[in-house]
Amino acid sequence: MVKTDIGYTTTDTIMVRGKNLSTEIIGKFDFVDMIFFTTLSRMPTPREKVMVNALLVTTADHGITPSSLSARLTYIGAPEALQGAVATGLLGAGSVFLGPMQNAAEMLIEGAKELRDDATDAEVMQAAREVIRRHKERRQQVFGVGHPIHVDGDPRVPALRELSRENGYYSLHWRLMEAVSEVLMTEHNRKLPMNVVGAIGAIIAAMGLDPLIGRGLALVGRSAGLLAHVLEEKSQPMAREAWELVLKADPRNVLP
Amino acid sequence: MVKTDIGYTTTDTIMVRGKNLSTEIIGKFDFVDMIFFTTLSRMPTPREKVMVNALLVTTADHGITPSSLSARLTYIGAPEALQGAVATGLLGAGSVFLGPMQNAAEMLIEGAKELRDDATDAEVMQAAREVIRRHKERRQQVFGVGHPIHVDGDPRVPALRELSRENGYYSLHWRLMEAVSEVLMTEHNRKLPMNVVGAIGAIIAAMGLDPLIGRGLALVGRSAGLLAHVLEEKSQPMAREAWELVLKADPRNVLP
Amino acid sequence: MVKTDIGYTTTDTIMVRGKNLSTEIIGKFDFVDMIFFTTLSRMPTPREKVMVNALLVTTADHGITPSSLSARLTYIGAPEALQGAVATGLLGAGSVFLGPMQNAAEMLIEGAKELRDDATDAEVMQAAREVIRRHKERRQQVFGVGHPIHVDGDPRVPALRELSRENGYYSLHWRLMEAVSEVLMTEHNRKLPMNVVGAIGAIIAAMGLDPLIGRGLALVGRSAGLLAHVLEEKSQPMAREAWELVLKADPRNVLP
Amino acid sequence: MVKTDIGYTTTDTIMVRGKNLSTEIIGKFDFVDMIFFTTLSRMPTPREKVMVNALLVTTADHGITPSSLSARLTYIGAPEALQGAVATGLLGAGSVFLGPMQNAAEMLIEGAKELRDDATDAEVMQAAREVIRRHKERRQQVFGVGHPIHVDGDPRVPALRELSRENGYYSLHWRLMEAVSEVLMTEHNRKLPMNVVGAIGAIIAAMGLDPLIGRGLALVGRSAGLLAHVLEEKSQPMAREAWELVLKADPRNVLP
Repeated sequence: MVKTDIGYTTTDTIMVRGKNLSTEIIGKFDFVDMIFFTTLSRMPTPREKVMVNALLVTTADHGITPSSLSARLTYIGAPEALQGAVATGLLGAGSVFLGPMQNAAEMLIEGAKELRDDATDAEVMQAAREVIRRHKERRQQVFGVGHPIHVDGDPRVPALRELSRENGYYSLHWRLMEAVSEVLMTEHNRKLPMNVVGAIGAIIAAMGLDPLIGRGLALVGRSAGLLAHVLEEKSQPMAREAWELVLKADPRNVLP
Repeated sequence: MVKTDIGYTTTDTIMVRGKNLSTEIIGKFDFVDMIFFTTLSRMPTPREKVMVNALLVTTADHGITPSSLSARLTYIGAPEALQGAVATGLLGAGSVFLGPMQNAAEMLIEGAKELRDDATDAEVMQAAREVIRRHKERRQQVFGVGHPIHVDGDPRVPALRELSRENGYYSLHWRLMEAVSEVLMTEHNRKLPMNVVGAIGAIIAAMGLDPLIGRGLALVGRSAGLLAHVLEEKSQPMAREAWELVLKADPRNVLP
Repeated sequence: MVKTDIGYTTTDTIMVRGKNLSTEIIGKFDFVDMIFFTTLSRMPTPREKVMVNALLVTTADHGITPSSLSARLTYIGAPEALQGAVATGLLGAGSVFLGPMQNAAEMLIEGAKELRDDATDAEVMQAAREVIRRHKERRQQVFGVGHPIHVDGDPRVPALRELSRENGYYSLHWRLMEAVSEVLMTEHNRKLPMNVVGAIGAIIAAMGLDPLIGRGLALVGRSAGLLAHVLEEKSQPMAREAWELVLKADPRNVLP
Repeated sequence: MVKTDIGYTTTDTIMVRGKNLSTEIIGKFDFVDMIFFTTLSRMPTPREKVMVNALLVTTADHGITPSSLSARLTYIGAPEALQGAVATGLLGAGSVFLGPMQNAAEMLIEGAKELRDDATDAEVMQAAREVIRRHKERRQQVFGVGHPIHVDGDPRVPALRELSRENGYYSLHWRLMEAVSEVLMTEHNRKLPMNVVGAIGAIIAAMGLDPLIGRGLALVGRSAGLLAHVLEEKSQPMAREAWELVLKADPRNVLP
């Protein structure tokens, strides 16, 4: 049968995962409850809620990124279609930006499979070496390390680590991610500190969520950041000037 | 200067609206705080938070809509690009679906401009007639009434009305929206009950938010619903069958 | 019945508008034939073909535009999803960029409705004044004049005018568009020369095409230009540097 | 320097790949010339033109596909944003639909690397076995064979084969693709005929084009088909009914 278990509609009710949207959900669920309920068919625990809020907040965006810049460039061409600007900003969330959170989580889940929860540091280091070896073999990059701007360390990592500790998610996956960074730094003799992708990957893995959900939550968080950028572009435009700045970088372009 | 006030980045800090993301935001703000903080540069009050959560929950989606169906159809062609499926679902949020929340809010803000907060019912009815007259004159539809499925009344409206009452947002804008529906029903002698678009428009107007923010919040809410649909499509596919169902509706299409 | 007249499929044939794709179309139709055939259910005349090729060529894009820049910014985040980068570049084609071709055509069709084909210059000038008056009344901009870069005249206009002349499409709509520009320049005492949007609007109107087709052809043309930009970004990247240029314009951003 | 070689703009000229758009391109280049010129910086030969036209025509779309259906579903929600509907239809062109043309071309280029142009049939069969072995080893599907609807053979393949023959592109890559299909059919003892993806992959490979260009041309071709569907949806809507058909497939949904 062609159907979804998420919900159905009759002339007088809307049902979501077996609950009545109007009488059992609106006003009773907050947004994070709703995310859990629609995707996983259950409510989050309080500590899951803390962590998911942190993921949404962290991925919301900040300043000028390729994602927010392209959303603003779309907005100035189609200001009547807010949805197109937000969609644009999301479309850059692929294998290079945001998407790797999924890959990092998958890498850590696979890498920690053989470890006991109380693995020694030496065992975790050994597993990290194994992860790196496997990725080399597959000619695949290792996820979750290094940052083009935060070269000495991603400032979001300590904040997310502390929060994971407080909520019982500083697990094997975090330790493995830290060990991967350490081994790589020694091997390559250069700074490759764990980054926000690694931290979120570790959190997703520690929470036992499908890594694709992690990637999806980043899209939800980002949509809020994009909204802020588009609203600012409306009242305080900068995208046209940004474009002209890029245009003028090539002296063959002559503007009036 | 080409700049944004939303945030900036240095090698060791990320600043959002004057606060340090790592030490002052992550773990301290929940997602609705972050939405307010990035878009409006302030924290929400508790009752604003209740209302914004309700808007996000209400717009998250439910069952098969054109938006969730198109997201799923995109996903089966490009399962490696989650962002494309979510973007697809958002692209249908235009002047017909979701977008009218902005128009309804604008209509109610304009219509209530001349009314005092304690306007009598007769004054509100008069203002409603004025709104309808103006829209006729502009050959523009009146927003916020009628529903193709919920013909006797949109079940989300009473839930949102009660919540608005409890939180001090059952204002002039709600009364005006209800009056618009009433006048239209009398004029056309058919059921044109207020719908979810009208309710959300009234809430946005009552909260004093930019109507574009209302439309944007609906996109954020919807992105969560789309995520749920894409995740379900991954484990319990239905989009291909749905497509074949549509294909077979024309008997000239012959499938094996 | 849920059906399309564009085509249908059986286990051994694919039919498009009544013709067999494999035996009657592939190798026999070129792309412009196919565009006409699928959208209008007929073949183009030779002079229609010349004009549609010119529209596709003109809108294909050139250099750095908000559209090509945002496509490249999306590509660097999701290089595995070419479709997302092309979609991004198209999403900026709204009411400000590309979309106005549709509006200009509509403006010219409406404005020329009362004129005979052999209207005198004075009659055309009078109709132009009427167009401008109507747009003022509706608080709507006049389409097809002025350009932020080509302040003294859009170089594409003479090329498209000549081609229209050669192919019998230098009609009333062209004359009306030119008159609109002339009247506005006199009224405002500043340069408001006809631009490419006005020229394409005039061509669409002169060809008797649905203005929405004009806008759609611009999307098809642009998709080719976007492809060129994405392919160049792959071998000769510039989007990351462009982003950093914008980032550095605000001195609060500190990059390593 | 942040620059593109595709083109630049001054106040009075637009240059594309060293040619003046207005005086040297518009009216002189047709669309396929322009595609070649902007992406490859050269004009196509006559037989390249025939083949690229065939690729564009073949990928333009026909009937109801997930791509055209999702574009139509987006259009009914946002009819003011044509670009969003076309973008939607393109977003489904990923690793499952259209995208595999790139993979098939890559597979054939790699597989034919060791073969001489006049390889014997036995050598080509041996190379095909090698291709299949390599894909198995990498746990990657073999591209270009089988079709859910055209189970006995894709009707586009003979048309594209004949055209390739006539234009000198029936090369090693075609023979290899046919051999891959043959070997697989023998191995699995079921029908796995070469499909349109394999044919286009073979053509791209035989033409010596970057496989990514092949995938991009499919997007350009598809954008024309999507335009046809959106235009039809405007005058002869079917998307809402299609949606209701899907909705009603689950009897829990009750429509008025």
